[in-house]
Amino acid sequence: MSELRKDPVVGRWVIISTERARRPSDFPSGGTGRKGGICVFCEGQEARTPEEILAIRNPGSAPNGPGWSLRVVPNKFPALRIEGEIELAGEGLYDRMSGVGAHEVIIESPDHDASLGTLPPDRVADVLQAFRDRLRDLRKDPRFEHAIVFKNHGEAAGASLEHPHSQLIATPIVPSMVAEELEGGLQHFRIKKRCIWCDIVHQEQRGGARLVLEEDGIVAIAPFAPRFPFETWVLPVQHQSSYEEASAADLEALARALGEVLRRMTRVLSDPPYNFMLHSAPLKSEALDHYHWHLEIIPTLTKVAGFEWGTGFFINPTPPEVAAQFLRSEVPERPVS
Amino acid sequence: MSELRKDPVVGRWVIISTERARRPSDFPSGGTGRKGGICVFCEGQEARTPEEILAIRNPGSAPNGPGWSLRVVPNKFPALRIEGEIELAGEGLYDRMSGVGAHEVIIESPDHDASLGTLPPDRVADVLQAFRDRLRDLRKDPRFEHAIVFKNHGEAAGASLEHPHSQLIATPIVPSMVAEELEGGLQHFRIKKRCIWCDIVHQEQRGGARLVLEEDGIVAIAPFAPRFPFETWVLPVQHQSSYEEASAADLEALARALGEVLRRMTRVLSDPPYNFMLHSAPLKSEALDHYHWHLEIIPTLTKVAGFEWGTGFFINPTPPEVAAQFLRSEVPERPVS
Repeated sequence: MSELRKDPVVGRWVIISTERARRPSDFPSGGTGRKGGICVFCEGQEARTPEEILAIRNPGSAPNGPGWSLRVVPNKFPALRIEGEIELAGEGLYDRMSGVGAHEVIIESPDHDASLGTLPPDRVADVLQAFRDRLRDLRKDPRFEHAIVFKNHGEAAGASLEHPHSQLIATPIVPSMVAEELEGGLQHFRIKKRCIWCDIVHQEQRGGARLVLEEDGIVAIAPFAPRFPFETWVLPVQHQSSYEEASAADLEALARALGEVLRRMTRVLSDPPYNFMLHSAPLKSEALDHYHWHLEIIPTLTKVAGFEWGTGFFINPTPPEVAAQFLRSEVPERPVS
Repeated sequence: MSELRKDPVVGRWVIISTERARRPSDFPSGGTGRKGGICVFCEGQEARTPEEILAIRNPGSAPNGPGWSLRVVPNKFPALRIEGEIELAGEGLYDRMSGVGAHEVIIESPDHDASLGTLPPDRVADVLQAFRDRLRDLRKDPRFEHAIVFKNHGEAAGASLEHPHSQLIATPIVPSMVAEELEGGLQHFRIKKRCIWCDIVHQEQRGGARLVLEEDGIVAIAPFAPRFPFETWVLPVQHQSSYEEASAADLEALARALGEVLRRMTRVLSDPPYNFMLHSAPLKSEALDHYHWHLEIIPTLTKVAGFEWGTGFFINPTPPEVAAQFLRSEVPERPVS
């Protein structure tokens, strides 16, 4: 049984995921390919995943069989389990909570070799709308306070399967990183009466040095203080706190911008492993003046080491102004031969 | 010129380390071995490092030549530079600070193939005393608020050279992770009038399930809510807030305990890459009732991915009670053949 545990000093929660319990001999990890020639996310292998929660299907095709362009299924090895009530318990100094949550996989295409950078924009928009539809559904579950959608692309970025997919994890508490963003946004709003992300967008639009692209109300920027080289944020210019409120037109614009950023990263950085994380307001929030949803993309180019784990400080060798310059130009600079 | 930049939302500082400035083509990284057959940290190669700050030398040997058992030198590619004053500047919403700090390398042995697990305890104690002596010296520099000592062992843990070494980085601000520990410790102290790490040690001594070893006033535990599998904390049983205050006898006991924990990790986990981080009170602190220095050891067994980067939540597949059980037994469990 998975459980949540809280560090008594800093209050950081961790998931002890005993569904995946690991003994020392389990750690040398395998690859991410088609094991034994079979990928469980490919078309025709639907019986190898749990039953689908959502799918985009050809007319007449039956659930959990072939004939789909997108499927959402529960994770077969979930970090948190969907059944059960939230139970709290103490142990001396310590606090624990039952490991209840949702852990879903969004299979983005039946094509094993596709990616969000190569799929046509309307297929990318389908993926982004599936994120929204799942968040809207999970909002109704009284046990969940927050949900994050994220992608691990490439083994170095933590992907265990190479077939194009994203994941969603809903948790019974608001994660510390989102709580810090909410708190920082609220402090700024109290003083300025403005959303800090709106202020960031305006400053980057005026300055231009960290602007990667702007199209149809979506902006991509290299943030001023990025943890990682080529870290890029994609967000709507118009204020909106919850991704669930995005319209179909908003998500079509986001699909075009996201696809373009990923294609540029692929070209400039030679198809790097990467993660993206969708930050949105807590599921139970009303529309908030002080929060603004955004997508953070981080290519895996450097190793996180002792200094970062010990301090929370990150050492980034690439100034965001340099990264943005590379990502603005369609083709990477190369010496003339 | 390196600089510190602050994220305007969450207040997290990053180091933009332009000394190591990276263009896209710089990222595919090399190995960690003896490049061209030469390791710059080996005996006889002293001219390839900056001049030594501290060394343990054979009587009669000259500085910056052979005849040493330990050397401390400035990092040749420092994340922060030692010269200059701390200057603050704004840019609209944003804050930056000049990248002033100390970045030193502790070369732990002239033997390229040694490690803290294989060196004799008195040599390990020399290393731990070098940490202390450098911290005591850096304490006098009015520009530095905090210093962390850390080790990256193995390429997957971020080591760029395999010769046994640790590093020290002193910063003009207290890093967020240490600030959170100080705040958490203070909150506990205000309510309980006790140090939270002392309370943790006592609870683990009584319970035993997460205790790895206890010898001569040093305890090693698997923490209740570890971020990583086999994460282990090593700390003195007697309250002490600053590592700089540790006595020679304290450090000899720590050397024996640390060597033993590393040898057990090597056996149980097949010589894993790992980091350790020494957390001590800020350099300018008086003795604090609410802080307790400690060493955190984290083997690199899992990949940190989108969920962790997006939430600050960690998924750990190995309960600390299981990890402690493996680390308590000298020899890993194996099937009887």
